[in-house]
Amino acid sequence: MNSPPPASDVLDRLSATLAARRHADPSTSYTAKLFARGPDAILKKIGEETAELIMASKDGKETEIVFEAADVLFHTLALLAFHGLSMADVRQELARREGVSGIAEKQARQTQ
Amino acid sequence: MNSPPPASDVLDRLSATLAARRHADPSTSYTAKLFARGPDAILKKIGEETAELIMASKDGKETEIVFEAADVLFHTLALLAFHGLSMADVRQELARREGVSGIAEKQARQTQ
Amino acid sequence: MNSPPPASDVLDRLSATLAARRHADPSTSYTAKLFARGPDAILKKIGEETAELIMASKDGKETEIVFEAADVLFHTLALLAFHGLSMADVRQELARREGVSGIAEKQARQTQ
Amino acid sequence: MNSPPPASDVLDRLSATLAARRHADPSTSYTAKLFARGPDAILKKIGEETAELIMASKDGKETEIVFEAADVLFHTLALLAFHGLSMADVRQELARREGVSGIAEKQARQTQ
Repeated sequence: MNSPPPASDVLDRLSATLAARRHADPSTSYTAKLFARGPDAILKKIGEETAELIMASKDGKETEIVFEAADVLFHTLALLAFHGLSMADVRQELARREGVSGIAEKQARQTQ
Repeated sequence: MNSPPPASDVLDRLSATLAARRHADPSTSYTAKLFARGPDAILKKIGEETAELIMASKDGKETEIVFEAADVLFHTLALLAFHGLSMADVRQELARREGVSGIAEKQARQTQ
Repeated sequence: MNSPPPASDVLDRLSATLAARRHADPSTSYTAKLFARGPDAILKKIGEETAELIMASKDGKETEIVFEAADVLFHTLALLAFHGLSMADVRQELARREGVSGIAEKQARQTQ
Repeated sequence: MNSPPPASDVLDRLSATLAARRHADPSTSYTAKLFARGPDAILKKIGEETAELIMASKDGKETEIVFEAADVLFHTLALLAFHGLSMADVRQELARREGVSGIAEKQARQTQ
């Protein structure tokens, strides 16, 4: 009851914050400014952050890899928020695939 | 007690599955095959999935956006697993930024 | 007179070949197959080849950098051909910028 | 003899200009500043420009497609210059592939 919220909640909190800042005054935060610049600005950032994630992986520095993965995830969540979607939708899709894989694996075992 | 695990856990389960398949027989799953092909194969997929996420956003189809965002997230988690990292590390980084933003916002308010 | 055409023409020849294969039978060449799969297939390849160019640069291997740069250029020319455009259009745009830069530099010198 | 240089030369002139600005004072031009920021800055721009080319293609606006293709090409030439390579190397690679295709096509005709 008094326990802290599970760490996993940071993604939902972030998704909620992004949704709330969708139409906020651009001068109030990086996120609000990003939304004000429109979807192309978010997509451009996703292209840039992906390039940086690839570079960080090539450099093999763990701290940088985590940092750039967080940047890719942040801007992906911002894009979802722009489209009225959230982390919950992506979780649902990943959970659906988990189920599919489970069935596929079962079938694979039965046919062997 | 008998309630299902929170939906948010799918990311941790996925991270754990990916870590477990890091050195699995390539013939057993898509993930094991991806790891066997090495880090460059994962990075190539990240580049490809990012392009598809950008296209899905431009097409404005919600189902596709969620699907491609899930693909980007899946391959980012695979890259983290390759480097011995996990979703927990990215969550920690995002939580750290939450804290920083909070403080930064407070300071911004105090100096105004 | 009997000298070979300048090496630079390979880009124009490639642009012309791509334009000619725009509606060719998909079974006749890689290019015809790529066009048959539609613009999203070309864009996906551009995303993938860009990731490979970034990796080649990080690896610092000259042969790979040239190979991947050629791949990026090839698929960019294919995209232009899909839209009824060619290398000539890109050359014209780069030449236009050259002119602008020249003027801008001249002005910069005159105002100093 | 007094004819203007072929339009195709803009790529070689650009390659030569980029090579010359490789170690120039960062305050003198965009290119010199880009080189001074190092290879990661060039790779980041390539990721960003690729995202913009994908967006322009989706938007279907010819002027934008040409503009973004020119940006991708410019930054690819800058990357080549950083590695001591030039447009001539990429042309040679594309010409080599032309030759291979030619042979492959001849073989295809002979086996039919």
